[in-house]
Amino acid sequence: MDGVEETLKRIESNASVAGTIVLNSEGVPIRSSFDSGTSSRYGREVSEITALARSAVRDLDPQNDLQLLCIRFNKREIIIGAGEILSEISFLFLLIDS
Amino acid sequence: MDGVEETLKRIESNASVAGTIVLNSEGVPIRSSFDSGTSSRYGREVSEITALARSAVRDLDPQNDLQLLCIRFNKREIIIGAGEILSEISFLFLLIDS
Repeated sequence: MDGVEETLKRIESNASVAGTIVLNSEGVPIRSSFDSGTSSRYGREVSEITALARSAVRDLDPQNDLQLLCIRFNKREIIIGAGEILSEISFLFLLIDS
Repeated sequence: MDGVEETLKRIESNASVAGTIVLNSEGVPIRSSFDSGTSSRYGREVSEITALARSAVRDLDPQNDLQLLCIRFNKREIIIGAGEILSEISFLFLLIDS
């Protein structure tokens, strides 16, 4: 997990990054730079949208899989990278304060 | 609608843009550069995700609203701009072949 930790620290050091949360496939935060309440709230919302986006991609093109999802709202952006880390399907997402 | 039509034609002329679809708030295509089957399929999937993303944004920050949603999957990207055109809440989305 060291390589992942280093990468996350480097991303979090970027002034425009408000923080990062790593979720497991159930949307439970397994690492976060936010407090637990914020992490769980974002985790729930993000995992629901990511699951729906993933199934939509499969419906539209069964050979395909979701890679990235970004949600932009006034002065904030959530970037969700769906990927496998340590053989557990997990999502890394960043909260950018633009 | 002329200005919108011109803008869409210009966007569609971009080599990396596979096409555009304008949906009304029920996810029904009101203008599309794709055939009707493709337009309706994408319309259904996109409007469902957009509705969920919009409610998630409101849950996370009631003062906020969804502006843009992008879904990237292998060699394709859907960019969904949520906005009001002609006082009807509608979504414009582009399908990019990267």
